[in-house]
Amino acid sequence: MAGSSYGTIFKITTWGESHGEGVGVVVDGCPAGLELCEDDIQLFLNRRKPGQNRYSTPRKESDSVEILSGIFEGHTTGTPISLLVRNTSQRSGDYGEIANYYRPGHADYTFDAKYGFRDYRGGGRSSGRETIGRVAGGAIASKLLATLGITLLTYTRSIGPVSIESFDAAEISRNPLSMPDANTAKKAASYLETCLQDHNSSGGLVECIIHGVPSGIGDPVFEKLDANLAKALMSIGAVKGVEIGDGMSVAQATGLTDNDGFSMDSSGQIIKLSNHAGGILGGISDGSDICLRAAFKPTPSIFASQKTVTRTGDTLDVQIKGRHDPIIAPRAVVVVESMAAITILDALLVGMSAKLSNVQAIWKK
Amino acid sequence: MAGSSYGTIFKITTWGESHGEGVGVVVDGCPAGLELCEDDIQLFLNRRKPGQNRYSTPRKESDSVEILSGIFEGHTTGTPISLLVRNTSQRSGDYGEIANYYRPGHADYTFDAKYGFRDYRGGGRSSGRETIGRVAGGAIASKLLATLGITLLTYTRSIGPVSIESFDAAEISRNPLSMPDANTAKKAASYLETCLQDHNSSGGLVECIIHGVPSGIGDPVFEKLDANLAKALMSIGAVKGVEIGDGMSVAQATGLTDNDGFSMDSSGQIIKLSNHAGGILGGISDGSDICLRAAFKPTPSIFASQKTVTRTGDTLDVQIKGRHDPIIAPRAVVVVESMAAITILDALLVGMSAKLSNVQAIWKK
Amino acid sequence: MAGSSYGTIFKITTWGESHGEGVGVVVDGCPAGLELCEDDIQLFLNRRKPGQNRYSTPRKESDSVEILSGIFEGHTTGTPISLLVRNTSQRSGDYGEIANYYRPGHADYTFDAKYGFRDYRGGGRSSGRETIGRVAGGAIASKLLATLGITLLTYTRSIGPVSIESFDAAEISRNPLSMPDANTAKKAASYLETCLQDHNSSGGLVECIIHGVPSGIGDPVFEKLDANLAKALMSIGAVKGVEIGDGMSVAQATGLTDNDGFSMDSSGQIIKLSNHAGGILGGISDGSDICLRAAFKPTPSIFASQKTVTRTGDTLDVQIKGRHDPIIAPRAVVVVESMAAITILDALLVGMSAKLSNVQAIWKK
Amino acid sequence: MAGSSYGTIFKITTWGESHGEGVGVVVDGCPAGLELCEDDIQLFLNRRKPGQNRYSTPRKESDSVEILSGIFEGHTTGTPISLLVRNTSQRSGDYGEIANYYRPGHADYTFDAKYGFRDYRGGGRSSGRETIGRVAGGAIASKLLATLGITLLTYTRSIGPVSIESFDAAEISRNPLSMPDANTAKKAASYLETCLQDHNSSGGLVECIIHGVPSGIGDPVFEKLDANLAKALMSIGAVKGVEIGDGMSVAQATGLTDNDGFSMDSSGQIIKLSNHAGGILGGISDGSDICLRAAFKPTPSIFASQKTVTRTGDTLDVQIKGRHDPIIAPRAVVVVESMAAITILDALLVGMSAKLSNVQAIWKK
Repeated sequence: MAGSSYGTIFKITTWGESHGEGVGVVVDGCPAGLELCEDDIQLFLNRRKPGQNRYSTPRKESDSVEILSGIFEGHTTGTPISLLVRNTSQRSGDYGEIANYYRPGHADYTFDAKYGFRDYRGGGRSSGRETIGRVAGGAIASKLLATLGITLLTYTRSIGPVSIESFDAAEISRNPLSMPDANTAKKAASYLETCLQDHNSSGGLVECIIHGVPSGIGDPVFEKLDANLAKALMSIGAVKGVEIGDGMSVAQATGLTDNDGFSMDSSGQIIKLSNHAGGILGGISDGSDICLRAAFKPTPSIFASQKTVTRTGDTLDVQIKGRHDPIIAPRAVVVVESMAAITILDALLVGMSAKLSNVQAIWKK
Repeated sequence: MAGSSYGTIFKITTWGESHGEGVGVVVDGCPAGLELCEDDIQLFLNRRKPGQNRYSTPRKESDSVEILSGIFEGHTTGTPISLLVRNTSQRSGDYGEIANYYRPGHADYTFDAKYGFRDYRGGGRSSGRETIGRVAGGAIASKLLATLGITLLTYTRSIGPVSIESFDAAEISRNPLSMPDANTAKKAASYLETCLQDHNSSGGLVECIIHGVPSGIGDPVFEKLDANLAKALMSIGAVKGVEIGDGMSVAQATGLTDNDGFSMDSSGQIIKLSNHAGGILGGISDGSDICLRAAFKPTPSIFASQKTVTRTGDTLDVQIKGRHDPIIAPRAVVVVESMAAITILDALLVGMSAKLSNVQAIWKK
Repeated sequence: MAGSSYGTIFKITTWGESHGEGVGVVVDGCPAGLELCEDDIQLFLNRRKPGQNRYSTPRKESDSVEILSGIFEGHTTGTPISLLVRNTSQRSGDYGEIANYYRPGHADYTFDAKYGFRDYRGGGRSSGRETIGRVAGGAIASKLLATLGITLLTYTRSIGPVSIESFDAAEISRNPLSMPDANTAKKAASYLETCLQDHNSSGGLVECIIHGVPSGIGDPVFEKLDANLAKALMSIGAVKGVEIGDGMSVAQATGLTDNDGFSMDSSGQIIKLSNHAGGILGGISDGSDICLRAAFKPTPSIFASQKTVTRTGDTLDVQIKGRHDPIIAPRAVVVVESMAAITILDALLVGMSAKLSNVQAIWKK
Repeated sequence: MAGSSYGTIFKITTWGESHGEGVGVVVDGCPAGLELCEDDIQLFLNRRKPGQNRYSTPRKESDSVEILSGIFEGHTTGTPISLLVRNTSQRSGDYGEIANYYRPGHADYTFDAKYGFRDYRGGGRSSGRETIGRVAGGAIASKLLATLGITLLTYTRSIGPVSIESFDAAEISRNPLSMPDANTAKKAASYLETCLQDHNSSGGLVECIIHGVPSGIGDPVFEKLDANLAKALMSIGAVKGVEIGDGMSVAQATGLTDNDGFSMDSSGQIIKLSNHAGGILGGISDGSDICLRAAFKPTPSIFASQKTVTRTGDTLDVQIKGRHDPIIAPRAVVVVESMAAITILDALLVGMSAKLSNVQAIWKK
């Protein structure tokens, strides 16, 4: 199936494998007239670049983006924006041994089951490099959202057992783990050292706060804003749980504590007195901050010995060689932000026609 | 936007408000040749019917389904199956007072923000009655899946602080809370009594186990099987969190404990030695049971006093009158099962063309 | 496949067979706030009703439409509008004999080839009654377009060898053949008499002029406005050719005669000096009238003897019994108009986000 | 809107402007296991390459395709196939003058109306170079169809007033006008010489015959095979009319002559005794050859003087400079074939699940 596209009006189509010629994305449906240049996108890509610290893989990937179409005189033209990032650190030799057995926690077995064979080099299409296209698309969506006063703030909330205890947004870009709490970041780094020594890896929790979304975005039934955000986040490799607002904990809550009362603010706007709902009621934005969380599983590639089988059905114990990140979550922060931005923008665009008065405002002469 | 359809090849389109003429669904893309009659669907609808016990609203809704099209001589014809359930207990008078203010935890405010006005009777389109169309579609999907050896088991895992401590599938249909543990069901009932006395309500957790899905279903990137399941479940009203396999807890896990090793079973099939992944690797089914959980928030309609505002911006304290369910989760069990069944079936149908050999098996003369 | 939906934002999903319980449509994505009642729809349905004259089948179908959802206090709510027309003249006995053989020019054989069996009563899903859902959807689209100053005029341009020689829009509703030329309508009626006497039938040509579409509607590549109009019209049963503007004759034209020069009108608007393009350039509306034509084949059900085969492979000569329309085109006029209206409206809605300035006009606070 | 994708399961997404960095396509949903290399695609691209004869523009475009993803060890992997063709003959200086006025018959004005501005260099996104992505996708679809015994034959049927009078398939590739009749090709060439001398251009008619499509492909209502073929062809720039089988002429036909009787062939297969329907009945293939025609308007760029206006509303007479093809049709032959192939393949893939027995054949263990 054609499963590499996401979005209805603002649509991204990603392509590329870890060790093919490159990876990229076609961003279609971007409104015309947005100022855009390669730097806007490169800035986002740099946030996911590996090799920047001890906790991400030391492979040096330059990941330079090239805009192939859709921009004229520094602005989007409304036609597809094609973005290309060449693969530069292909060392197929390193990956030959995984051609024959199935790495636990990876998609090797399921790709073979689905397609009959697979491009085993570096995980092929299930490599983390696939997210480059998402992030490039997210950079464009975020820039457009900013012109509407909508901003996203995304960070690592916890790593293994170590959770943030304070919040300082400025701190996020200062530590390699993208945590908004310098002290916790140090503890988490120490925890990851232990994981590395144990040939082990750690899971982590990423949180995204979207500020400035007007009320009235999203649809009542299947195209609920939270439903699409859940899909967007769960479609990122290694995510196993997604929460909106109070998330899983609502199962233990009561109506009295979970409901958010309404009131009026000083400017005459309707506001909520709390935000257990995470900014979405009945699938539609309520004007509060939208709060999302995604739980990332530990990096499945570990050096510790694991049991597996070969393509031909022999059992064996394997140690996954190479230097791998001991944690996925921090590098995925920008991927979560990108998928959220794309989802919000698409909901805004499809939602323009919700009221007849809007349609008439645009089209009636 | 046209947000009332779900699915790519097997597609349901639901319609209807709580207090309009009725609710229904058009099920399009069902393969021809499946035996189907109204009883197959009624059986599923009865599982979500209200008024069956003290913990669900005593409104008597007969919810009789009528098949309007798509069946000939007892079999699906491949053309759209239109299903209609007339609304029979419309008492608009009861709902007049909510026309002017916004109920906390409901979609009243967001509908007004989106559309400029709303059908306020009984929640209109955001009523729980909207799920009738989903369940009718789920009945058909489930019946087809059963012919492929795929079965779903869904139940209430916890209510407020009360979680199951043992598991007996046969117990699920024996208690009104759809719990697989009779003892826990009693404790949960007692907890709900307290909620009712406090004019309060409780959240709950629903779990769904899908057995028999072949490996190789779902797509690698945006159409990951878990991404679509997450959307399917999060699109159900009141769901605020969705988990696959170990879910949110993977954020605290390590690679050594979270990875599922592979082995061979006695019949020469590849199996996983554990199932932390919940049956899905890289977005594609791995042949193990698929395990899902959805957290339902407490019923937002409670009699206890809450703060809100009117459409015209006056603040007030409200008590939501009428008898409302103190818990949503048990009645939502069949909705979760239906959405999961539809998602799995659709993934099976779009996945038929993954391999050239499959295409040739069907079309080559 | 789920092939019964049409449109992206404004989407119709039709269902129903000739001799099932009824036929209907779910209209999803209609902007909220449009005044709408059953009479608006009934008026359109009456234009396709059979039995109104000698040239359409004398079966009395009342075709009364019931609105089941999506309207509150006389206005669309933005949620799905479900419309139901019960079948009332089911006389299955009349159709039993066609269960076993394949009528030439009908879809009997292809349905069996596709689905393995078919609902043979009255053509089942391939019956002309399927268009009731389209026309109901078209009534809503047309009413909304009218609020934007967009109007459609549709008529029979020719019947067999008889073509209109003059044009008077007022005449269209005055003759049973929906021709804008009273004299030609008489000649065509006489030609159809001959067809009836010969146990034969005639093809016809329907033309649709859409006035008031603003320039800038439609997309450059696959979602060209003319591409979607071509699909819309070709999806109507019996249509075998579709033309935009000068249509097939452009193959004989030269650039000098086919190009439409531009000029300015007295109000300072850009206009075309001619309209060979039929109102669309590069897939995008240019502000001129949009001109479409669809060629309808002759009614395939004729009493004259024809050669065919049975399901089991025996050859035979058949005469299709019953009274059938000697011509399809006049009753299809409103179907063409409906499909064109739905296509134009959908293009307007998806086109609202083409420019960043439009997006900001709706969403920037 | 995201209008640059086509297809449901087998989906192409094209991108690129005439004078940007390049043009390309992402082909998603191609079944895994098809042998594919760059030569397979280059062969198709070469068929549309300009500068090959006097009747196509002498710009030398090398149009070399690069496969960036989706192939491993010489076979499709089931993941997106990204194809890139760099633009090499960008001479923006030549196109500067068309920045300010609207060329008659081109999309300059409508792009400005839609997007507020446009990439005017060489027609930007509405350039004929956009079709490179379609043809690359068509090459892949055609190669897959060939493995199922389905072949396409496409050619120029007429140029201006000159129509083929005999048919020899081998002749098509022998003359620069892609006509299956050497004598007519000569006459047409002579006609085009006259057009060139007159600073004029000619329209043309392209025909496509698809052989070997099994019966039962396509859906009954909106996704009729002919409806999708009509959209596919009408989405090609310059096409103004599309016909299936007898096409527009059915409007003059009678049932007796237009109906195709059925019979049995010597191998016990059901066949039609004629093929007025062009291989499709009720939107579903009937096993006969599928016959399509598309009418291409004359090249709008002509040197003869034409009336137009500037962006700022001044009127002027223009002569479009540069060497332009005097005819579009012959170079569009491979584009028509490509769009037809993609449409047929997609219909085959979505049609795999039409019968429950097919679903069980693939998925039942």
